[in-house]
Amino acid sequence: MSDQITEQPEAEEDEEFIPRRTVLRQIDAALEADDATQLEQLLEPMHAADIADIIERLDPADRRKFLQLYSIEMDGEILSEIDEAIRDEVIEALPKEVLAEAVREMDSDDVVDLIEDMDEGEREEILAALDESDRAAVEQSLTYPEYSAGRLMQSEVVTAPPHWTVGETIDFLRAEDWLPEQFYHIILVDPRRHPVGYVALGRLLASSRPIKLTDITEDSFRTISATADEGDVAYAFNQYHLISAPVVDNDERLVGVITIDDAMSVLDEEHEEDILRLAGVGEDSAITDTVMETLRQRLPWLAVNLATAVIASLVIAMFEDTISAIVALAVLMPIVASMGGNAGTQTLTVAVRALATKSLSGGNVMRVVRREAIVGLLNGLAFAIVMGIVAWIWFGGVSLAAVIAIAMVVNLAIAALAGILIPLALEKVGADPALASGTFVTTVTDVVGFFAFLGLAATVLT
Amino acid sequence: MSDQITEQPEAEEDEEFIPRRTVLRQIDAALEADDATQLEQLLEPMHAADIADIIERLDPADRRKFLQLYSIEMDGEILSEIDEAIRDEVIEALPKEVLAEAVREMDSDDVVDLIEDMDEGEREEILAALDESDRAAVEQSLTYPEYSAGRLMQSEVVTAPPHWTVGETIDFLRAEDWLPEQFYHIILVDPRRHPVGYVALGRLLASSRPIKLTDITEDSFRTISATADEGDVAYAFNQYHLISAPVVDNDERLVGVITIDDAMSVLDEEHEEDILRLAGVGEDSAITDTVMETLRQRLPWLAVNLATAVIASLVIAMFEDTISAIVALAVLMPIVASMGGNAGTQTLTVAVRALATKSLSGGNVMRVVRREAIVGLLNGLAFAIVMGIVAWIWFGGVSLAAVIAIAMVVNLAIAALAGILIPLALEKVGADPALASGTFVTTVTDVVGFFAFLGLAATVLT
Repeated sequence: MSDQITEQPEAEEDEEFIPRRTVLRQIDAALEADDATQLEQLLEPMHAADIADIIERLDPADRRKFLQLYSIEMDGEILSEIDEAIRDEVIEALPKEVLAEAVREMDSDDVVDLIEDMDEGEREEILAALDESDRAAVEQSLTYPEYSAGRLMQSEVVTAPPHWTVGETIDFLRAEDWLPEQFYHIILVDPRRHPVGYVALGRLLASSRPIKLTDITEDSFRTISATADEGDVAYAFNQYHLISAPVVDNDERLVGVITIDDAMSVLDEEHEEDILRLAGVGEDSAITDTVMETLRQRLPWLAVNLATAVIASLVIAMFEDTISAIVALAVLMPIVASMGGNAGTQTLTVAVRALATKSLSGGNVMRVVRREAIVGLLNGLAFAIVMGIVAWIWFGGVSLAAVIAIAMVVNLAIAALAGILIPLALEKVGADPALASGTFVTTVTDVVGFFAFLGLAATVLT
Repeated sequence: MSDQITEQPEAEEDEEFIPRRTVLRQIDAALEADDATQLEQLLEPMHAADIADIIERLDPADRRKFLQLYSIEMDGEILSEIDEAIRDEVIEALPKEVLAEAVREMDSDDVVDLIEDMDEGEREEILAALDESDRAAVEQSLTYPEYSAGRLMQSEVVTAPPHWTVGETIDFLRAEDWLPEQFYHIILVDPRRHPVGYVALGRLLASSRPIKLTDITEDSFRTISATADEGDVAYAFNQYHLISAPVVDNDERLVGVITIDDAMSVLDEEHEEDILRLAGVGEDSAITDTVMETLRQRLPWLAVNLATAVIASLVIAMFEDTISAIVALAVLMPIVASMGGNAGTQTLTVAVRALATKSLSGGNVMRVVRREAIVGLLNGLAFAIVMGIVAWIWFGGVSLAAVIAIAMVVNLAIAALAGILIPLALEKVGADPALASGTFVTTVTDVVGFFAFLGLAATVLT
């Protein structure tokens, strides 16, 4: 029962997925007592991914102790589950033999993931632990660019010639002892190793022995170039419901296979990066980061924000005389800016997501821009009325109410346009819209908002 | 070659995934000319998911025309790929026979997805098109709560008794003609239909006929309760690298199976919702929404924002006299608020993500809160120095510079604490941190920022 994913109204919602609180407490106690046997017993029933999570969650001092007590039990599976942010730390803490043994157990794609950020010397040490063919596979993967399909693929592939029958294929599979842990298709390759189709294992099992492989291939077959971007690979898996797909080199020769679980991890990471980028946080942020790492990621974005805030302040400074004459302007002006910033962020987020999911392009761009402009205008009119009434009641002046109402319409309309046009422009010039749009959009809404409000006030009220 | 996912430096980056611009233009021309034959020819080589995308991208008038010309070609696959936002529109445009035929082709989980939001009458009409057993499967799924594993599962499951051998299993599979399109495991069930393990198809194929199924089961086996939340299911697939998992009812009896492609879609949707919620946009937003739908999603959040902005303004209003005496305060005050808002959003986003990925809980909460507080303080000190110097140069007053410097430290420290504590508190009371944190955090940073800056100024400078 311990492996069931279920709903437990009485227990904590996440209990099924994260190790139970009592176990965490027992682990803390085992660390405290330097009790390696107890620690091993507690972790024995756990999935490698959960053990990795526990290691990530410990504070640095406890983590060192954990690795010391548990080092001989560390295997390739746990190692490949550990977050990049603390992987170096873990690797350094492991005895060389343990590390070598762990690496030998890993699939070639996991080894690539492990060593791609290492320097030459460290890399060599790990590669030396692999046998000849694994080492060659890893080295081939490393020749492809970072974040490419070539880095993501595993080189262990099950292939068959297209002229084989079901019976021949099954006999071949029974005779081989090197088959990968997980595979879902037999890839048909011609004599020059060009993939020409694939057969799902379910289909193979349901067909009688004399049937030819070419008669039971799947329509979903498509190959992936080893240089394709991993984000595009994840998109294709999700869009076309692929389970595995052959990877080919520039000469269309089969070099590996990507399976959906790796594509799912990439999709997860890309989303994570998008969210963090939209918030102006370094995309490599992890909950395990130290104070200095966190500071290094966030400070630059705050500095950019400071610069844009100063620009907005310069606009305000142009109207110092008007403000000192009518101090109500200083009270109301952040409302205009805040509404513009929020409306801009709404449009921006929808636009950035639509670009990321490739659902905003070509045909529908003009329609979406038009929609956003109309929505911005209508939002502006709605809040112009509300704020006009609020300002009128609060400060009693009809002209002031009119000024903030007009400023609201102008600012929300411009916010909507900035929210859609800025990400489109960034995408056009090849920049990541998630990364930089936010700053641009709020700068525009602040500057326009302050300028419209204070400029109008200066003209009308003084 | 048209099905290869590749990198094409010369062409548009996304060309491989979205139908080429020229094809889109030809489709427009075919619609213009009412040319159904031409339309069918253009769409013939395309994947159902891409056809669905094209339908989504058309403006409403063109979409009606498209559905009219293409209606007899619409099949279950295209229908299940179409975004919920326009699905009703598409279903209504289809002749009843076409719809019935399309539904008959669909897997039970796709039918559930299609009809779960329909009213009783529409549902009945679609269910009537299904044969007895499919209808029963769909109706059973619908008894489980929305967003549960029971709604996500398909009822077509391949099972075998644990005492069978590889040979018996293969003979059974060859004899059956109802097997699902895609399956990756044979689930072993006892006589009361309790799942007791599963065998990967690759393993089955590689084993000789006399081997017992119980000798080649997978360690990764875990069952999912039909009432489990779909988000938790997606998490489990990603965390434990599952490919398929049996779903059981309250009596632990097998009722269906969930496959990784469905889990991947859920993961994708949940991320999307998180991003949209963080930005204060209705989570059902789609690029196909009309102006009114868009307005309905965004206006309420802007109204909430207006209310919080007015609260911040009330704080400013408390210091009207100070501002009219020293108008530089009005110029600088948005900088303090903007920096606080940004720093708060950074912390908040990291916290919301960590909660969503279950990596912030129990053991590490105190450590993360401490880290955020220290980072906030250090950021505050850094920008206190910068802004102090800027204000000093700009306005020449040392006291004013000191006031903004101190306000900056206070505000960035509070922003960091609000950014981590508010989502934690919302999670604790069972609210979605992604949905409401943003508003709370910016209200706190605005109020604290204005109060610290103007309050200090009132005390020190006047």
